[in-house]
Amino acid sequence: MPENIAQSLRIHREDRDNFNLAKFPTSCLSGYSDHADYLEKLGALRQILAERQERLYASQERALLVVLQAMDTAGKDGVIEHVLSGMNPQGVEVTCFKRPSETELGHSYLWRHDGALPARGKIGVWNRSHYEEVGVVRVHPEYLAARGIDPEDATKRFWNQRLDEIKHWERTQASNGIEIVKIFLHISKAEQAQRLLDRIEDPKKHWKFRVADLAERERWKEYMHAYGAAIAATSTKFAPWYVVPADDKSNARLAVAQILEHHLSDDALDLPKMSAEDLRKLPGIRRELMRELQAHR
Amino acid sequence: MPENIAQSLRIHREDRDNFNLAKFPTSCLSGYSDHADYLEKLGALRQILAERQERLYASQERALLVVLQAMDTAGKDGVIEHVLSGMNPQGVEVTCFKRPSETELGHSYLWRHDGALPARGKIGVWNRSHYEEVGVVRVHPEYLAARGIDPEDATKRFWNQRLDEIKHWERTQASNGIEIVKIFLHISKAEQAQRLLDRIEDPKKHWKFRVADLAERERWKEYMHAYGAAIAATSTKFAPWYVVPADDKSNARLAVAQILEHHLSDDALDLPKMSAEDLRKLPGIRRELMRELQAHR
Repeated sequence: MPENIAQSLRIHREDRDNFNLAKFPTSCLSGYSDHADYLEKLGALRQILAERQERLYASQERALLVVLQAMDTAGKDGVIEHVLSGMNPQGVEVTCFKRPSETELGHSYLWRHDGALPARGKIGVWNRSHYEEVGVVRVHPEYLAARGIDPEDATKRFWNQRLDEIKHWERTQASNGIEIVKIFLHISKAEQAQRLLDRIEDPKKHWKFRVADLAERERWKEYMHAYGAAIAATSTKFAPWYVVPADDKSNARLAVAQILEHHLSDDALDLPKMSAEDLRKLPGIRRELMRELQAHR
Repeated sequence: MPENIAQSLRIHREDRDNFNLAKFPTSCLSGYSDHADYLEKLGALRQILAERQERLYASQERALLVVLQAMDTAGKDGVIEHVLSGMNPQGVEVTCFKRPSETELGHSYLWRHDGALPARGKIGVWNRSHYEEVGVVRVHPEYLAARGIDPEDATKRFWNQRLDEIKHWERTQASNGIEIVKIFLHISKAEQAQRLLDRIEDPKKHWKFRVADLAERERWKEYMHAYGAAIAATSTKFAPWYVVPADDKSNARLAVAQILEHHLSDDALDLPKMSAEDLRKLPGIRRELMRELQAHR
């Protein structure tokens, strides 16, 4: 794994035309030598992330939105647990987007995501996101009916328009203080088979296993096409995509930590200043508090 | 600090009649010998909390709501940062209740709190809470006007009724799967003076300092009376109050960690089971996945 992982995994404008997610590697050179080395590197990165988050929180100047997408078992939950634990939970909001509710289906597909955007100072983490609306829904256009859209109308042009809407929606968020970082954890179909087997072998992991999800494996190619089209169309300067090879969980976690470090590295963030009026009052307040403390002793 | 801190700091029914918060100690025997010992003890407790939270999350059976109340500078933010970091952020929702918005003021005083209750499986942490409505609002009844209530009507009977409403509202949450733990971080007025001085001396802490907050120090006794009355009236079996001596920050954090450990200790929590139907399908799925993996190699 190269030093500047964030740069190397980012999907750039010039990559977009020939982007083929199915051919994108799901493994890469290891960024650690053994488990102890992984833990040490992850620990160091977590420390940096915690410090930078504190500054983001204190400055209240902008927000960071981290979008996590992936096929089942790719490790989204693990990334949240292992990379983001250690940050101050007061500044981190994780939102899990599940199947939309009846109320949500009554609104536009972006509506519930608007409601979950992080406020300035916060880091929002989305476990699944509006990209489900151009991912699983593109693979299953029959889901569109629940939003009053005829699945027959879901032509390539329809999906391109959605992707264009998403791009513009993200630009609006970005120009209003939300930095957006999108991460696709990329595993191979064989690695998914292995992980599903692990869940079957271990009764403690049975609760993570849903038989119904298996059917989606049959549509792997369609998913790669849908996500690939989405990544190619929406990886922009203000809301870039990173495709993280995720067959090795530890390596993927290190990569995500480095990507976040890269996006939290803005040194220009300052702590909010006291007003000149309040500053002038400080010496008087100080004297009064000291007098009170002396009287108390 | 005794072994069973949770038990010793809990306000029991029999304590309620003569409860006087102003006389409650703000310091106690230390639960650690030196800073290294504190870090080790806190680390061990955080580990336990993280494991139990994972079980709570997986079981999706019930939620835990942790209410933090305190005078300014008592250390609510520090408790959240130092005790709760390390938990999986996917299962923890921190809500900071600030001055109510115009929209919130248009509803009942419990409305915005209803909206912030944690879902089953989650730990909700409230930095300030509905107790502001019987704390700062009791000290400043003029705030009631914004809710269309004449401050003249805020008699002792009015506040007793509010406390009764809160008690019943909490019972309803508790009997619907939300375990409620309420913690008052208790500092002395002199300790607050010292902490305010520290903030003045250190320009990096200036952003935490609001000159306007100083005026509240003058009303210390009224605050102790209001919070004391609230704690006495609402410390119940289903939503107990703990008053944590907080002049020593480290000791207070250890105490809060032990209280949470106590409330997360239910061993009956089980991981959700797979349905019998799905279980029957497992061997077939297993064979198919293994065949696929062998073909892949």
